[in-house]
Amino acid sequence: MDVYSSNAIVLTDFFSVQSSKPLPQDDSLKLLTLGVTKAIAVKSGISSEIEVHKIFKKVNSAFKLFGATSKTIKHRCMVFGPGDYSDILAAKLVENDHFVNFDLSFPLYDDLIHRHSNPDGADLNKRILMIYKKTIELVESLYKGITIQPDDIIHVTSTGYIDPNPIDALANNRKWYDTIISNCYHRGCNASLQAIRMGHDFLKSSMYNKFEKNKSRIDIVHTEVNSAHMNICKYNPMNIIFLSEFSDGFIRYSLLPQSSIINNGPSGLKILSLSQQLIPDTINCSKVSTASPSFLLEVDTLAYIYSIKKYFKKFVVNLCHKVGIDYDKEKGKLVFAIQPSGAEYINKIGKLLHLADEQLYFSKNVMYEYGDMTSAGLPYIYRDILASDDVPTGTKVLGLGYAQGIILGGIVFEKV
Amino acid sequence: MDVYSSNAIVLTDFFSVQSSKPLPQDDSLKLLTLGVTKAIAVKSGISSEIEVHKIFKKVNSAFKLFGATSKTIKHRCMVFGPGDYSDILAAKLVENDHFVNFDLSFPLYDDLIHRHSNPDGADLNKRILMIYKKTIELVESLYKGITIQPDDIIHVTSTGYIDPNPIDALANNRKWYDTIISNCYHRGCNASLQAIRMGHDFLKSSMYNKFEKNKSRIDIVHTEVNSAHMNICKYNPMNIIFLSEFSDGFIRYSLLPQSSIINNGPSGLKILSLSQQLIPDTINCSKVSTASPSFLLEVDTLAYIYSIKKYFKKFVVNLCHKVGIDYDKEKGKLVFAIQPSGAEYINKIGKLLHLADEQLYFSKNVMYEYGDMTSAGLPYIYRDILASDDVPTGTKVLGLGYAQGIILGGIVFEKV
Repeated sequence: MDVYSSNAIVLTDFFSVQSSKPLPQDDSLKLLTLGVTKAIAVKSGISSEIEVHKIFKKVNSAFKLFGATSKTIKHRCMVFGPGDYSDILAAKLVENDHFVNFDLSFPLYDDLIHRHSNPDGADLNKRILMIYKKTIELVESLYKGITIQPDDIIHVTSTGYIDPNPIDALANNRKWYDTIISNCYHRGCNASLQAIRMGHDFLKSSMYNKFEKNKSRIDIVHTEVNSAHMNICKYNPMNIIFLSEFSDGFIRYSLLPQSSIINNGPSGLKILSLSQQLIPDTINCSKVSTASPSFLLEVDTLAYIYSIKKYFKKFVVNLCHKVGIDYDKEKGKLVFAIQPSGAEYINKIGKLLHLADEQLYFSKNVMYEYGDMTSAGLPYIYRDILASDDVPTGTKVLGLGYAQGIILGGIVFEKV
Repeated sequence: MDVYSSNAIVLTDFFSVQSSKPLPQDDSLKLLTLGVTKAIAVKSGISSEIEVHKIFKKVNSAFKLFGATSKTIKHRCMVFGPGDYSDILAAKLVENDHFVNFDLSFPLYDDLIHRHSNPDGADLNKRILMIYKKTIELVESLYKGITIQPDDIIHVTSTGYIDPNPIDALANNRKWYDTIISNCYHRGCNASLQAIRMGHDFLKSSMYNKFEKNKSRIDIVHTEVNSAHMNICKYNPMNIIFLSEFSDGFIRYSLLPQSSIINNGPSGLKILSLSQQLIPDTINCSKVSTASPSFLLEVDTLAYIYSIKKYFKKFVVNLCHKVGIDYDKEKGKLVFAIQPSGAEYINKIGKLLHLADEQLYFSKNVMYEYGDMTSAGLPYIYRDILASDDVPTGTKVLGLGYAQGIILGGIVFEKV
């Protein structure tokens, strides 16, 4: 008997919740253009109609140039997006050189909207508490109806840290006092890879430990609240991309030993290989810092794209080689989950990897339906691949990501 | 052959660096009393000698009541502590109702010292960048002379997050591009337990994976810069405890398969068991949030102590039972590493566990020599136990901690 195969680990039982009513992309761009205009005007002490209109034109151009359109993103969920905005879209910001009062709920920028002040919005302390409260609710929804206690839960987020965390709160509410809760924090878009590695190793190790019973289920829970990190005082290209693409993602899934799903169990994605690699000398290409009022993302886009172009294909070929796949020969039979951090990036990677357009479908579709949910993006794609009748059992699936470091990450699954 | 024992995992090769010249505790209390007095005076717009002296008296009483004295802490390393302060200790803060200009370097509170303004000190953004820069230097010192690449490095901190992190930077400098770097973040004092669990499972799992070579060394690196989170605008009891006890800790150690040290290898601590448990309904007893200007620690001290009193002994008895130790019968033969979060806590836990005074020696000594280094505290104690000739090979060692959750954590080692 092959001891390795018999103890393979499988991802299954993907379940996501909608964190808010999805905001149509065209509306979000209009609202953001108004919001950024007002924030910059207030910050500069400007309220004359002519001057505010000048700002509006600049901001509008920036969104037209760098913002993701409704061609690539249909809508996005944003916990801290605006409330009912139907009266606002066509409204004027300024009349008779005074800011107009809008009846709009937008908790991060309450002062800006109602008192025409504080363009920086809520400070980090307030944002983190808001994230915490909302995440506790959404994690409860993720676990609605789940009564069987997992051995471990791995909490994945890069958008805000409170200890004890919302998963500890869930465990307490469920009396799951000896479920081990581990953090997989501040690894951006690549965090699903790291969390899956952790879960895989926790489960596998338990099969060979004296001091633990064999674990039977490890959950991974992503809670990404990117909308809490909006900063509408800037309209540089990177911030426009952030504002127009990033969204919130809440998803959980489970890692099980394959043996437990063999007889009439659910289908799953069996882990065949995991790999990651730091690209040499790209430490300064991109950086995410804990900062106030919002976490700070800095990217040298050209250097970033250049590095990915140079290393990605080779990384993928090696990843495949490790599990006996000849990439160039077999790529047509593989199904791809490419980190949905912008349609542009998915296209570029598709080209690098010489993929047919339809091989980008799952990735582009998650980008289109949800926006950039950072670490939650890939798991949403895995969910869709697992549910798809077009992907038969036995198909090899490649999960590919990248994030600050620059670190490339890859997983090979087999649909079982 | 017992497959479990032959693949046991051992902690070894502890190495720490001093992050700064240690600050004698009595001096630190005097300086803090002056600093808090000035911060509160400036915040309240007060500079009259009489009024400032009133504040001084209150602050001084608070430090006398709640501050850790030089009986329990000899000195502490603080990266962001004051520079040469010899002229300051006996100086007056105010003369003729004006703040005196001091020639003192104290980077977090530069404005307060030299311009008598900004009592909140550097904001989070500045503090995080300062932590990052300094941590990169200190991590380089931790790895001075180390040329053999580890399979993994686990980065442990609860004091500041930048991605890529200082360990990524180290890996890049050393060309360790395929070393896997994992984060163990925001788990406070209990993080060493979680990091050791991660390292243990990463190493163990690799022995049974098809897709990885057997790993031979996993490093854990703690970089705790508590001194960057000083907030000298408050003198409530919890903040006085924080200001007077917390310090910085930088330590690395390695996890190896025991097989690799059997023949003339270094001595080590073999992991026999790992355990953790959430205490029911203590989620709100204590909380650490990412906040600006400094991370925010809130503790309901009475509830905290009550919960630990109620659950700790039972937790330890169970932990021991799992590896065949009858705690009450054998406790006299065990060596203890109790999380050094204040001499008071060590004493209380000693009483709960019915320990002799000398069994608290290693824990109290690290508290005395270093202060509360949060997650780095326990590893410093492990280092000392491993180095001590008074602890013979074969001795069972208990590592015991607790942190927000409230989560209790325990490890049983055997010195080998």
